[in-house]
Amino acid sequence: MDNMISRRDAIAKAALLGVGAILGGLGTGAAEAAGEPLTKQWPWPYVKLDPAVTAQLAYEGWYNVGCGGTVITSIFDQLAKKVGEPYKSFPTESFAIFEGGMAGWGTICGSVNGAAVVACLIIGPPTWEDTSKVVASDIMNWYSHTNMPVYVPKNPNANKTGIPHTISDSPLCHISVGKWMKAANAALGSDERKDRCARVSASVAYKLVQYLNRWKDGKLNVDDPIWVAPKKVGITAQYNCASCHGKKVPKPPVLKTTKK
Amino acid sequence: MDNMISRRDAIAKAALLGVGAILGGLGTGAAEAAGEPLTKQWPWPYVKLDPAVTAQLAYEGWYNVGCGGTVITSIFDQLAKKVGEPYKSFPTESFAIFEGGMAGWGTICGSVNGAAVVACLIIGPPTWEDTSKVVASDIMNWYSHTNMPVYVPKNPNANKTGIPHTISDSPLCHISVGKWMKAANAALGSDERKDRCARVSASVAYKLVQYLNRWKDGKLNVDDPIWVAPKKVGITAQYNCASCHGKKVPKPPVLKTTKK
Repeated sequence: MDNMISRRDAIAKAALLGVGAILGGLGTGAAEAAGEPLTKQWPWPYVKLDPAVTAQLAYEGWYNVGCGGTVITSIFDQLAKKVGEPYKSFPTESFAIFEGGMAGWGTICGSVNGAAVVACLIIGPPTWEDTSKVVASDIMNWYSHTNMPVYVPKNPNANKTGIPHTISDSPLCHISVGKWMKAANAALGSDERKDRCARVSASVAYKLVQYLNRWKDGKLNVDDPIWVAPKKVGITAQYNCASCHGKKVPKPPVLKTTKK
Repeated sequence: MDNMISRRDAIAKAALLGVGAILGGLGTGAAEAAGEPLTKQWPWPYVKLDPAVTAQLAYEGWYNVGCGGTVITSIFDQLAKKVGEPYKSFPTESFAIFEGGMAGWGTICGSVNGAAVVACLIIGPPTWEDTSKVVASDIMNWYSHTNMPVYVPKNPNANKTGIPHTISDSPLCHISVGKWMKAANAALGSDERKDRCARVSASVAYKLVQYLNRWKDGKLNVDDPIWVAPKKVGITAQYNCASCHGKKVPKPPVLKTTKK
């Protein structure tokens, strides 16, 4: 965690580094919504949800719409009942594409991809203030460092007598699921692996609702220091360069003071 | 490309392998929409767009909403004018979070993440038939193998006399942008790198509209064999295992015939 920086430092300096800077034009969510026609209200209204109820819905929903789809559906289906539009109209099932690190490619875990979508639609524009970007980034950080899965479902579909836990050290599906498959000696197509990924999705949905509730109360404090790779390592990246690069971590080019 | 399999093979067998199988309950997009209240029409209506016009919009929009946001916005803003709802109401700006491989973490390039969102909302449920999943997967494949950026904008903001091209061999932001930064000797915060990523986003938007137009005409034929990692390598993954693992590519556990 020594590569982490404080949020205040991140807020102050991220705009200089190419990531975050491009969002200046968006302004606040409230201002954005105010300038739009009535049909484009954003961010979307939120009422507090029960994290445990959401997690169980996410666990069960995984078997229909996968990791990304279920994080979104478990939250938006509740809000469709409690709030109505725009949630009632929104086809959350479309985000089933996030499954398997995007269509099985093993990139970002669909659950954290889905969490980011939810955070941005509810909290508003992604800046490094206490907003959706902080939530999305912290959930990836928490996901990477947590002994997963955290959530224990009612009536699990497999792993009924216990489940191996693994730390992914990455938000990537391939690494997260690969480490667990090795520890559990379970194939991708096994009931055990499916139950594990459903539990991981439920764990992410639980965490996300905790954050949304805190944000709604006006006291969002994320649990971890924020990882802002462009500030720390000069490139978009995870925090643990050596885990892929070994000892020979390349140095990215530095910004020239004289521009072309 | 020798790890690729034919689409027909993928369609026939992917459902056995845990990825794709969970989507059986979704049915077709048309059937899904028919059973929903009027407010939840899905997939969303599409009229054919001009790929070149879209690409230029995506290039310019990158500077406001980043790679993922601009692929979505460049297409949905045009459809908001030509079709109206639900595009008019949809806060495309929220997908600015996809920037930098999700909030700067360097995971999936936001442009292909955004392309997948568009494909699923317009084409419908992600299955391995000729649908959004095929489009999303093929765009990642094409992205990984293409000497990027392809699109040359009108009035580029940098790299006015020419731009280095690189093949990412990955849909991951960190690898894609890292290889280009090395080739161009350009920092992440440089005008040159920003112009490069805007051109990449424009290239993806161009490709996506080509596919959407073909699909609208009822003759979607993706350009490359489809990569279905669970079928080929037993885990969600890229196609080029050795590029990270070297010669020691781990073998994932196989499915046991006797289930617990």
